[in-house]
Amino acid sequence: MRAVTRRERRRAAPADDRPRECCGLFGIWGHPDAARHTYFGLYALQHRGQEAAGIAASDGQLVRLHKGPGLVSQVFADRTTLDRLPGAAAIGHNRYSTTGTSIARNAQPILIEYKRGQLAAAHNGNLVNSADLRRAMEDEGSIFQTTSDSEVVLHLVARSRAAGLPEAIAESLERVVGAYSFLFLSPEMLVAARDPFGWRPLCLGRLEGATVVASESCALDIIGAEYVRSLDPGEVLIVDADGERSVHLPAAPRQASCIFEFIYFARPDSRIFGEKADKIRRAFGRRLAEEAPADSDIVIAVPDSANTAALGYAEAAGLRFEIGLIRNHYVGRTFISPYQHERDIDVRVKFNPVAGVLKGRRVVVVEDSIVRGTTLRKLIGLVRSAGAAEVHVRVSSPPIRCPCFYGIDMSTREELIASRCEVEAIRAHIGADSLRYLSVEGMLSVVPDPRAMCTACFTGDYPTAVPEDFHKGQFDRSRRTGAESKSC
Amino acid sequence: MRAVTRRERRRAAPADDRPRECCGLFGIWGHPDAARHTYFGLYALQHRGQEAAGIAASDGQLVRLHKGPGLVSQVFADRTTLDRLPGAAAIGHNRYSTTGTSIARNAQPILIEYKRGQLAAAHNGNLVNSADLRRAMEDEGSIFQTTSDSEVVLHLVARSRAAGLPEAIAESLERVVGAYSFLFLSPEMLVAARDPFGWRPLCLGRLEGATVVASESCALDIIGAEYVRSLDPGEVLIVDADGERSVHLPAAPRQASCIFEFIYFARPDSRIFGEKADKIRRAFGRRLAEEAPADSDIVIAVPDSANTAALGYAEAAGLRFEIGLIRNHYVGRTFISPYQHERDIDVRVKFNPVAGVLKGRRVVVVEDSIVRGTTLRKLIGLVRSAGAAEVHVRVSSPPIRCPCFYGIDMSTREELIASRCEVEAIRAHIGADSLRYLSVEGMLSVVPDPRAMCTACFTGDYPTAVPEDFHKGQFDRSRRTGAESKSC
Amino acid sequence: MRAVTRRERRRAAPADDRPRECCGLFGIWGHPDAARHTYFGLYALQHRGQEAAGIAASDGQLVRLHKGPGLVSQVFADRTTLDRLPGAAAIGHNRYSTTGTSIARNAQPILIEYKRGQLAAAHNGNLVNSADLRRAMEDEGSIFQTTSDSEVVLHLVARSRAAGLPEAIAESLERVVGAYSFLFLSPEMLVAARDPFGWRPLCLGRLEGATVVASESCALDIIGAEYVRSLDPGEVLIVDADGERSVHLPAAPRQASCIFEFIYFARPDSRIFGEKADKIRRAFGRRLAEEAPADSDIVIAVPDSANTAALGYAEAAGLRFEIGLIRNHYVGRTFISPYQHERDIDVRVKFNPVAGVLKGRRVVVVEDSIVRGTTLRKLIGLVRSAGAAEVHVRVSSPPIRCPCFYGIDMSTREELIASRCEVEAIRAHIGADSLRYLSVEGMLSVVPDPRAMCTACFTGDYPTAVPEDFHKGQFDRSRRTGAESKSC
Amino acid sequence: MRAVTRRERRRAAPADDRPRECCGLFGIWGHPDAARHTYFGLYALQHRGQEAAGIAASDGQLVRLHKGPGLVSQVFADRTTLDRLPGAAAIGHNRYSTTGTSIARNAQPILIEYKRGQLAAAHNGNLVNSADLRRAMEDEGSIFQTTSDSEVVLHLVARSRAAGLPEAIAESLERVVGAYSFLFLSPEMLVAARDPFGWRPLCLGRLEGATVVASESCALDIIGAEYVRSLDPGEVLIVDADGERSVHLPAAPRQASCIFEFIYFARPDSRIFGEKADKIRRAFGRRLAEEAPADSDIVIAVPDSANTAALGYAEAAGLRFEIGLIRNHYVGRTFISPYQHERDIDVRVKFNPVAGVLKGRRVVVVEDSIVRGTTLRKLIGLVRSAGAAEVHVRVSSPPIRCPCFYGIDMSTREELIASRCEVEAIRAHIGADSLRYLSVEGMLSVVPDPRAMCTACFTGDYPTAVPEDFHKGQFDRSRRTGAESKSC
Repeated sequence: MRAVTRRERRRAAPADDRPRECCGLFGIWGHPDAARHTYFGLYALQHRGQEAAGIAASDGQLVRLHKGPGLVSQVFADRTTLDRLPGAAAIGHNRYSTTGTSIARNAQPILIEYKRGQLAAAHNGNLVNSADLRRAMEDEGSIFQTTSDSEVVLHLVARSRAAGLPEAIAESLERVVGAYSFLFLSPEMLVAARDPFGWRPLCLGRLEGATVVASESCALDIIGAEYVRSLDPGEVLIVDADGERSVHLPAAPRQASCIFEFIYFARPDSRIFGEKADKIRRAFGRRLAEEAPADSDIVIAVPDSANTAALGYAEAAGLRFEIGLIRNHYVGRTFISPYQHERDIDVRVKFNPVAGVLKGRRVVVVEDSIVRGTTLRKLIGLVRSAGAAEVHVRVSSPPIRCPCFYGIDMSTREELIASRCEVEAIRAHIGADSLRYLSVEGMLSVVPDPRAMCTACFTGDYPTAVPEDFHKGQFDRSRRTGAESKSC
Repeated sequence: MRAVTRRERRRAAPADDRPRECCGLFGIWGHPDAARHTYFGLYALQHRGQEAAGIAASDGQLVRLHKGPGLVSQVFADRTTLDRLPGAAAIGHNRYSTTGTSIARNAQPILIEYKRGQLAAAHNGNLVNSADLRRAMEDEGSIFQTTSDSEVVLHLVARSRAAGLPEAIAESLERVVGAYSFLFLSPEMLVAARDPFGWRPLCLGRLEGATVVASESCALDIIGAEYVRSLDPGEVLIVDADGERSVHLPAAPRQASCIFEFIYFARPDSRIFGEKADKIRRAFGRRLAEEAPADSDIVIAVPDSANTAALGYAEAAGLRFEIGLIRNHYVGRTFISPYQHERDIDVRVKFNPVAGVLKGRRVVVVEDSIVRGTTLRKLIGLVRSAGAAEVHVRVSSPPIRCPCFYGIDMSTREELIASRCEVEAIRAHIGADSLRYLSVEGMLSVVPDPRAMCTACFTGDYPTAVPEDFHKGQFDRSRRTGAESKSC
Repeated sequence: MRAVTRRERRRAAPADDRPRECCGLFGIWGHPDAARHTYFGLYALQHRGQEAAGIAASDGQLVRLHKGPGLVSQVFADRTTLDRLPGAAAIGHNRYSTTGTSIARNAQPILIEYKRGQLAAAHNGNLVNSADLRRAMEDEGSIFQTTSDSEVVLHLVARSRAAGLPEAIAESLERVVGAYSFLFLSPEMLVAARDPFGWRPLCLGRLEGATVVASESCALDIIGAEYVRSLDPGEVLIVDADGERSVHLPAAPRQASCIFEFIYFARPDSRIFGEKADKIRRAFGRRLAEEAPADSDIVIAVPDSANTAALGYAEAAGLRFEIGLIRNHYVGRTFISPYQHERDIDVRVKFNPVAGVLKGRRVVVVEDSIVRGTTLRKLIGLVRSAGAAEVHVRVSSPPIRCPCFYGIDMSTREELIASRCEVEAIRAHIGADSLRYLSVEGMLSVVPDPRAMCTACFTGDYPTAVPEDFHKGQFDRSRRTGAESKSC
Repeated sequence: MRAVTRRERRRAAPADDRPRECCGLFGIWGHPDAARHTYFGLYALQHRGQEAAGIAASDGQLVRLHKGPGLVSQVFADRTTLDRLPGAAAIGHNRYSTTGTSIARNAQPILIEYKRGQLAAAHNGNLVNSADLRRAMEDEGSIFQTTSDSEVVLHLVARSRAAGLPEAIAESLERVVGAYSFLFLSPEMLVAARDPFGWRPLCLGRLEGATVVASESCALDIIGAEYVRSLDPGEVLIVDADGERSVHLPAAPRQASCIFEFIYFARPDSRIFGEKADKIRRAFGRRLAEEAPADSDIVIAVPDSANTAALGYAEAAGLRFEIGLIRNHYVGRTFISPYQHERDIDVRVKFNPVAGVLKGRRVVVVEDSIVRGTTLRKLIGLVRSAGAAEVHVRVSSPPIRCPCFYGIDMSTREELIASRCEVEAIRAHIGADSLRYLSVEGMLSVVPDPRAMCTACFTGDYPTAVPEDFHKGQFDRSRRTGAESKSC
């Protein structure tokens, strides 16, 4: 059965060559337009997940839920839906893509009835011990209707003998290991929590006296809420009729905020972990220019995610930033070529090279990260076909060598080109004239507190024990040495 | 929280004046086209539920599920859906209508993962003690994601320490009280069960060596399967690689098959409880003619459900059967008048009186049952407007005085006109020249084994203890005497 | 190009074994709720066409249109659509099924702008000389965007030099030959017309001072309008701010109302051509019983269209009418079996035989007409499989030997089994123990004015010259003698 | 009637503050995958129109059409649609947004039948004399089913007595005045034409021997076709079994290619009028920097349309280009705020300011054009709210003072803020610290042949006579002097 789940996950091959993360969170307490503000908050967080969206709202008596597959604008396309979610408190969730069949049942928030009444939950992240917890609860007779970690934690909360809901939630979260930000909503209470390592972002805002929480501050901006602070690692924030108060989970051995949020996930206009994403991202680009200069004419980005790093690179390198690739924003996330055997049409539908910019030029192409390398290979082909004289790829993060167990879907190690191949082999594979990555040291040099970041996907230094099946075949640690690199 | 559930149910006011039952079941084991046959079986059982439909299929390794709101033809409109349900075993479910918001989460089958792996379940009926079981399990930490009895039983199965799945199911069913037919599907096994009272129908068929189970035999006919027999009350039929075998739950004090299946629910071409529905239904009509003759010219039915009884009435009364009301079959189940204040448009959209048949005639209108009387009142107005000289209503079942706890949604006692009003008051309310019901004795005289039938909705003789909140206000037993009848 | 159109028509093979007619009409002038009443009128006329629906409404200044593929309830599913059709005048149209690709562009009403302003038109029927008119106008430079006769007539109206719109319409209709009922709507005027032969029905009604026109009176009944009269053949009714007035087109050599309206198309509760459809239809059945008795136990109908004739047959034959076939009304018009090679599944999905009625019985099956015989053949197989001892088919109309050019889609002569085969061969083909048709004389004996009816599909006596390509191969008149009957 | 059309147009208020143009064209002759290539071509041209899309394809015998409202990906979402458009020739069209009700009927291509057979047409542009032509043809009896200029020209072609289709098309195009690029497809021939002034772009490409035409070269790039050249003004290119040949319409007094294509419409990676759009657009930015420097820290663009000009500005000004506004690409074109009275939510949903970039900075905001100024006003508010110290707006085109009659929907003069207000008043209205436009001279200085461009919207120098109703109130020429500027 669990094998099935894993099989399903494997089938969910990423449609493009990017890491994907799970989910955006938004919650609000104390505003008459709670569901509407949540709708806008999810709009701003749409980049964190496009597969499914949902909002649960409480009017103090009853929690109502609407969720479904698709973008926020699609799930709430019927304008009356928000009217049917009355109340002054709400939580919302955007979910990233997995397999087709599981979309419906894995949409969040999940709403349950249990001994205390109703409880909705939504989360961002990945629990390392959820399979163990699940197995143990199943052995005791529990049933599971989703593959979501939220359901695991809801089981724990329901089983807790603690006096109140906040205590039950805290007790439950103490038992889970891994990366998470959680939102819970009961008819009378909103609870927000970050894991003790602080992997996933969650920030606090204020709107006309109402409490707002969101994965990124861009969701505060859209509704005009004021940014207050990042929740602390291990902080459990409770908001109810008595106001706000926080309790703290037992401290983790260290802080481990996901550095990939800075590299790729967060919108550049967001503040996460208390820092402005665009500031860090630009610094990655600047540092990359120092570490890996290129004798070139112009700097272009793979739009839109590498734009900020490319600006930083260009600035530090004293080169001109240009827009050399145009992204077609009308391409839906479900684009599938009706051509059967067309090689590059998927990339050509998404990007078009600007020949006037590229022709005859020595070009630095800045990309934020490389997972499998397939899309980048095609992109470089496009850039060359537009007449670029030289193509120098600069990656504003180190090689991704190890899978992530904390919520970023980089799949298995085999799919990570940098776990199989040396840099030179990757360069040859993608067809670049040169390829350079940002060093781990360089990356860490620009974040405020390097020891507070998780860099496991680059270094293999996992802050927690890893899932037991990790060492059996799925990830062969010895190959990290890269002694022999297989075909790329 | 439970109050919420009840509130939700109350909101689900029936759209027309008929009792509604919950659900049609179909299952098949051992046929390469399992999902396709289930699709057709559900087509034939569509009259038992139009709100949602679903199919779970097993290929021996994995149970896959597709379900959604709407008719079978709508839920499986994408022709590729059935292809994505491979395997030689499948179960399917049609669900009757409730409120809009709960449609999605209450669709069946429900598919869970638990300690033994995957298990899907679907049921028809209503458990009397499900609220108690639910409350007890919630107290022990269980969570519920639907309001379905299937989920309650799945919890019991998951908690069972019995050696095998069949034993776990039998053990679980021993703990529930009420009316049910159940289908379970694991990757390796199909289990079908009827409650010990035998309330809901479930029959066994055979198709090219495959085992088929269905709520009514019309679902066997559509796929060309042979009817074998009705499952026994309390029978648990297990089908797996080793073949078919049955175990039996502890016997109930009596058999109590729902007589309303004969009166209204079953398609006349179906065999249920071992009997042909049209034969019994016609006998109701004949007996009604003997008990309650009418000095009339013609007999018409409220189409389509009263057609067979009307034929029997006409035959026994020596009167001509005529088609005096035409039903518009293009009216979807979701018809809502765009007129705001139009009185009878809903009935006029559904039915049109045939003036050529009715004009100047003394008409017997045969109806199968009266719940609230609102639609019948409008229909009689239509019949009169077409020029009928006299309208004599004959009902082929006794007055419905008591709510049903075994799966028929007649809602609360207040909505049952016959629980509030004497027959004469009902006659005046609906505007008939005369109104006669079939007697309980007459009804029972035509079924093969009167003691095997549940007649609680007519007599109040409930075969089981009734839910505890039943006596507190929702149903005032003393009023069954009808001493004072309130306004109808 | 014209060949293309013909080819497209040929592709539009009828999905079942019935003749199909084109379209229902409804119009109203002088009621604030014009579009809403039209919506309900189209609901009542849905049996005349399920492929597309549309409503054009005028507020005195502007004609607005909404139309699309599907049932009325689907096309107007968005409840706000009717609100966007304001005004006191409206016309509506239901269209019957043809090919998929042409649905969108052939939906009616058609709305044009021309020298006088806006004009919408909708029609029921078929023009015999539309190809000639079209060709002639094309030669003069006209363009056509649909294959609809309405567009041909709109071109004529636009080209007319007549003083006013009514005159222009009358002038145009004088130039067309064939069967039609037409509705026109300009911002200031509603015009309704029947062809001089009186082929297609159109009746006049009154609702609270408003003028109503409809193909059948059932559309008056649904909105509570009073039936006034049938429009005369050749009558052109003009309704505007000055009230109602009629002009008359030059008289035709004879009246030729389509007798198939009585046999099959009209709802039995409708009045058409001034007569109640169910009265005539029942008389067909009675006469059939006299002409073609059967030594049988019971009479059943192919539901629902043959119900009335079967009641008449049973009455005259002194046999019991029974419901031996149940029709599944949940089967949408677009049902396509997901089984690839399943023989009878389409019929078994639509009909189920009632074994309790049929078993061991000698059964008369009354059908209203036979076009190709394929469905009837499968139905008889179903009836036999339910245990019928003998199956005697009685058809309440004569053999259809000739194609119709006046609006009934019986396709080409080759598809008409009775144009290729003698009755005995048809009997053998469909597998009946006996087969008898109503005679032409018998059919005509029960209509009020036999000389006023068109019987061309039975007799080949076409009231007009037939299209020129008719004699070239598509229809071989000599074979009407049936000297040699080919394989059926 | 015509008033209606105008009224409808007025209702179609632009959703945002940009000029909108009508339509993208793509055609291909001589490739077995014609419809599929057209699908991709339209994908690349989606920026030219998002309201409706359509493809007509010819297999040499028959022209088949599929079109509908929405994006290309939506209209052709059913993967089998392209399969139902077989043939080696196809034309396609993207349509820009107007009112909801007219979407369906104004989608292109339009397909007609006329004396020569079938003909499909699609166009980009606006005819100045179409109302006159239409009125004249209506007077002669023609009917119109759309408000599209394509239908006007199709009428002319159908009326032509010329010998062949190419001659008929040329003859028809000689009679129309205005801006257009046209594609025609008959079963045997593809014809592409540009108006003699050369207003709208249309280029020629080659793919594996097939002829390709497209509004912009980016549609050639996506399918891997080679760019050959821009069609000449007045060129009519005929492609059929005999190959390609061109005829030329009578020369216009001058060339008048729309300079707004360079300013805003064309994708920067496209070549139009033989020039690379990004090269010209960047030069506008550079020239603007020379004409209107700003004492600032950084340069940002209003994304994405002003990106290229902003890069040019930054380069020439020696300032750093930054990404200060993030565009949310998940916002569908139909976004409507569910908030009722929220002022800026539409802009905040679409754009988010990057505080880290803007805070404390003196910012140059480069915009490509200003129509009404409403969106820009809100955007400047956003930029200020993010902490910008100063906001200097620089517009890479001159003030738009006059409406366009050649295909760009800038609506009436009243809506053009620069036709009512002086620059200083506009500056105050939008809340900028300074506002400078590119001069007409500056603009013309960077295009290869200034005399070949139409600059009417900036200068009022219309290359043709303007529509007669233009001078009556809708546009008051005297106010161009700006003697008194009304409130902005």
